[in-house]
Amino acid sequence: MIKDIRARPRIGVIGGSRAKKAALRDARQIGLLVGRRGGILVCGGLGGVMEAASRGAKEAGGLTLGILPGNAPREANPSIDIAVATGLGYTRNSLVALNADVLIAVDGEYGTLSEIAFGLIYGRRVIGLGTWNIPGLIAAGSPEEAVELAFKAR
Amino acid sequence: MIKDIRARPRIGVIGGSRAKKAALRDARQIGLLVGRRGGILVCGGLGGVMEAASRGAKEAGGLTLGILPGNAPREANPSIDIAVATGLGYTRNSLVALNADVLIAVDGEYGTLSEIAFGLIYGRRVIGLGTWNIPGLIAAGSPEEAVELAFKAR
Amino acid sequence: MIKDIRARPRIGVIGGSRAKKAALRDARQIGLLVGRRGGILVCGGLGGVMEAASRGAKEAGGLTLGILPGNAPREANPSIDIAVATGLGYTRNSLVALNADVLIAVDGEYGTLSEIAFGLIYGRRVIGLGTWNIPGLIAAGSPEEAVELAFKAR
Amino acid sequence: MIKDIRARPRIGVIGGSRAKKAALRDARQIGLLVGRRGGILVCGGLGGVMEAASRGAKEAGGLTLGILPGNAPREANPSIDIAVATGLGYTRNSLVALNADVLIAVDGEYGTLSEIAFGLIYGRRVIGLGTWNIPGLIAAGSPEEAVELAFKAR
Repeated sequence: MIKDIRARPRIGVIGGSRAKKAALRDARQIGLLVGRRGGILVCGGLGGVMEAASRGAKEAGGLTLGILPGNAPREANPSIDIAVATGLGYTRNSLVALNADVLIAVDGEYGTLSEIAFGLIYGRRVIGLGTWNIPGLIAAGSPEEAVELAFKAR
Repeated sequence: MIKDIRARPRIGVIGGSRAKKAALRDARQIGLLVGRRGGILVCGGLGGVMEAASRGAKEAGGLTLGILPGNAPREANPSIDIAVATGLGYTRNSLVALNADVLIAVDGEYGTLSEIAFGLIYGRRVIGLGTWNIPGLIAAGSPEEAVELAFKAR
Repeated sequence: MIKDIRARPRIGVIGGSRAKKAALRDARQIGLLVGRRGGILVCGGLGGVMEAASRGAKEAGGLTLGILPGNAPREANPSIDIAVATGLGYTRNSLVALNADVLIAVDGEYGTLSEIAFGLIYGRRVIGLGTWNIPGLIAAGSPEEAVELAFKAR
Repeated sequence: MIKDIRARPRIGVIGGSRAKKAALRDARQIGLLVGRRGGILVCGGLGGVMEAASRGAKEAGGLTLGILPGNAPREANPSIDIAVATGLGYTRNSLVALNADVLIAVDGEYGTLSEIAFGLIYGRRVIGLGTWNIPGLIAAGSPEEAVELAFKAR
């Protein structure tokens, strides 16, 4: 039975489709903690940090929402439950930020920077772990702290 | 526990945010049947036909995905489980069609017409019940037939 | 010198990227007449009816605006002056309709149908020449009549 | 007569809709220089830095393209020649970056940051004048230097 999905906090995890092992480990741990706390893990649906966070969330029995750049839901990584195809390319980064109550940025390059910017444009709290140093972003020292801050922010 | 979401067929129901009673009744019945058969009900997330179909799907214990024109997930009708805000206005109609494996059009005005067109552009089977008469659209005579055709089409 | 661009009527011509000779001839004639009357020719920027209409407009010394599905302005047909890349794929059809004061549909398949629908959603007058028969669309019998109706509509 | 529009370099100027006098003065000077050198001034079409840059470009007899967040071309500032309505809200920031060969960021807040990020995602050279300090962005010390770098970059 599926219930109460709507009331669950939506935690966005943003980061690159390529990332170093440490960042992937952090992302997975964040996903795991989000899943354990009943959050919906929202991300861009592809590989790297997105995939690691989704996998963590699924390991905790959580629910994952992936907002994809392409036209095909099947392009989502295997840990995405609800794949939303946009066909918008990088422009979909805006929609990732829009669909999270709060965002956690892990590592990342320019794509992540655009998502941080949109998160702040949309008034979301944005927490960072080893990512861009942008005024307004709240730095966390660990996955645990990042998730703690995310659930408090909401 | 939430499982197997990804493997479920996604049935889009498209139709106006205002509709007559008969169309709303049909939409609700379609949603109910989609939910019973384990389909995910995909729609534009607002009122009228969208809301009736979503309500039917929830009555059957199904899962609903609403792809909204505005910026706020909370604008979704109360029967939407996963509300995806796009901020794209009517342009989001394209994304509704993109995220369904097959579409059922019920009644509807120009918005529905645009979704029928996108469904056909994207190669989706589009089934119609009391809606636009467009070559390529498959006419059904009842909600039951529409859902039957939709699950066969996939 | 470039002046008064802003005050000029914007006439959208919509139609398929593949079309028969007669439709291409009609589109070119429409473009020519739009250009002569000082209108800006707005289209999807690609081939077929879009290219023919743009070419006609340029032959009359007019200005052309092409709103492209892809990421690269250079993908516009050679008669487009201002190529706007959207990266939105077919979803850009909505933007073509939005950026015309009035639309003329020539021939066309499902993409054109989506643009007709968006035109009507956005409250534009939509004139048709050998295209979809949709209530609300105004049928013209010739390129001359179509352009006449378009300039009156505005 | 309008000619050679297509071959002209497109210089994007990005910056906030509210800005201090010094930034507005810089933006206007940048627009003026872009116009004098035959560039098309591309911007978000609204007020502040966008309007100042557009005004400068028009003072030099240049051409301006404004890519708007809203649905109505008439919302463009009075110095925009070609107003393209997107209806995409802030998501249109991606399209501003996409439609410039090179970008000059002046001052700016999170919206500008998103446009810088998209510029870098799309492989555009991004020049900054008193704006975000982002690796990959090239800092200029004056409007003159910014425009010089922009035309070299292309």
